[in-house]
Amino acid sequence: MPESSSLTVGSLGESGLLARILPRLKGAPALLGPGDDAALIAAPDGKFVITVDTLVENQDFRLHWPSGFESSGFDVGWKSAAQNLSDINAMGAYASSAVISLTLPHETPVAWVEDLAEGFSAAVRDLGASYCALAGGDLGRGSELSITAAVTGTLATDRPVLRSGAKAGDVVAVNGVLGVAAAGLALLEETRSHREWSEAERVLVFGQRCPSPPLTAGPEAARSGASAMMDLSDGLLKDGLRMARASGVCLDFDSSALAEDARQLSDVAARLQKDPMDWVLGGGEDHGLLATFPPSAILPEGFRRVGVVKAIAGEGNHASVFVDGRAPGAYQGFDHFDG
Amino acid sequence: MPESSSLTVGSLGESGLLARILPRLKGAPALLGPGDDAALIAAPDGKFVITVDTLVENQDFRLHWPSGFESSGFDVGWKSAAQNLSDINAMGAYASSAVISLTLPHETPVAWVEDLAEGFSAAVRDLGASYCALAGGDLGRGSELSITAAVTGTLATDRPVLRSGAKAGDVVAVNGVLGVAAAGLALLEETRSHREWSEAERVLVFGQRCPSPPLTAGPEAARSGASAMMDLSDGLLKDGLRMARASGVCLDFDSSALAEDARQLSDVAARLQKDPMDWVLGGGEDHGLLATFPPSAILPEGFRRVGVVKAIAGEGNHASVFVDGRAPGAYQGFDHFDG
Repeated sequence: MPESSSLTVGSLGESGLLARILPRLKGAPALLGPGDDAALIAAPDGKFVITVDTLVENQDFRLHWPSGFESSGFDVGWKSAAQNLSDINAMGAYASSAVISLTLPHETPVAWVEDLAEGFSAAVRDLGASYCALAGGDLGRGSELSITAAVTGTLATDRPVLRSGAKAGDVVAVNGVLGVAAAGLALLEETRSHREWSEAERVLVFGQRCPSPPLTAGPEAARSGASAMMDLSDGLLKDGLRMARASGVCLDFDSSALAEDARQLSDVAARLQKDPMDWVLGGGEDHGLLATFPPSAILPEGFRRVGVVKAIAGEGNHASVFVDGRAPGAYQGFDHFDG
Repeated sequence: MPESSSLTVGSLGESGLLARILPRLKGAPALLGPGDDAALIAAPDGKFVITVDTLVENQDFRLHWPSGFESSGFDVGWKSAAQNLSDINAMGAYASSAVISLTLPHETPVAWVEDLAEGFSAAVRDLGASYCALAGGDLGRGSELSITAAVTGTLATDRPVLRSGAKAGDVVAVNGVLGVAAAGLALLEETRSHREWSEAERVLVFGQRCPSPPLTAGPEAARSGASAMMDLSDGLLKDGLRMARASGVCLDFDSSALAEDARQLSDVAARLQKDPMDWVLGGGEDHGLLATFPPSAILPEGFRRVGVVKAIAGEGNHASVFVDGRAPGAYQGFDHFDG
């Protein structure tokens, strides 16, 4: 925990802390914002999507990294917002509200929590979630720092884009970076000192600290007739397998379409003795979009073709993912309870 | 943590755990339930209320009590649901959906988590939240057990009942028990052994473990013209002061109207050398409703008059709460960051 401020959460108390946080939560206006038992949010088409995600210190983020880098409250707030906004994006929706629950150790500096609120707000603003109200939340004490956000959204079209709609013959496309957050994580965890990072390496670390989901791309894909869509949170292969299973198909990725992603990570991969394709295929936390489109569809801006949907081949076979028509072998995604 | 099962969260993995939890989350049907990036919920009147609350082990609940009592996953799930459903109730709304985020230590028994899901579902069902879909959530690892739920709701009338609407001359009323959860907490924490509890004492402990917010009373109060309303989560005086400040008035509680509440707690209070009125005025976690009604209103079923709203008396005075026209003195509520 940074020691820049002597004022801690424990010494300030709940209402004092709220008075520091609320002015920093700047978003779109709600019908009724923070301060009552619940907030009131518009749902103009008579329905809304909702998601929830938690970030826990030393599981989903670190404050102190082996490289000596210190993550700020801003980073953690940004990441919490980005992760949840991405889930709404992946349904083909615009975020309409966020509520935030913070669990804070007694000794957490108030300045750190203020920074977290600023980071959450900045992500909502800078990522373009311009309809998203920051509608309130909950504060509590714990021995472990964590932040949970629930975010709601309004669909761009009359129905959500699900994981289960991919059909044989559809184009597989992605929007956003692949492997950047994983490369950034490797730099944070496996380099001797953050002071030695090049400018290009700092950009990768920034992608891990403050991911940039392409927030207008989800609604745009919905309007362009995407047959299936999901957030890329756990890596292309693992998330692709989820889509394949939900749709009852196989996703075949084309490694040549991913070669440029790998090439951009090749310098840092060489330095850390990694295969950059591992990051591209297996790295999570980039929060881009994986989508499928009918063969006739024109891919909306920002989407690029990375493969094709195939039918499950014959008796005894399962929904699966391939790379260049073969089992992807060693490439694996992230399981919260593994290892 | 109970050791009834050798299967732990860490050994089962995320998808295996989800497969155990989801069938136990039984609620009303959602337009789209768990399994995609977000759930889809109906908001028939074009708006919805939303709230979020977190329960953290050893802050908001204990698994092992000084009295030797062991809280079950069922209790924790019930409490999480009850607390959030109560916030929706207090807006004059019916719950429409809940999403749940669990942070679980590696060694948490799977059976305990299953029990938690059962408890959450049971509260939704047994408390009468019959429109509430259990719409999904998030699973993650942490060193500290916690559960966050975000719950949405549909207003019973065309506007929510706020804390800020109390007017001088209005009747102050409550619905639900007062001090029961606090008395139960004292039994759990301050008695030598839970094996010595009488049947009446077990009922009080049950009120702490599994509070029963009066879930149809909030919408009913809204329809009956309640001028202000809020959930009683932190005690009558502390929550009353919040309402007084939001409304710019004073709330004057009539101790004679609370005497019966105190009398029902007098045996256990005597045994623990407490003043039962401390529990009635200061005890939190009962999750009843505090509401004000115009003097002409007929109180809806379950509400009872406990005081009157007064104007702030003269220059230099503030919004406040009184008991029998006097400052309540020692009675205090609960602050998450005090002590």
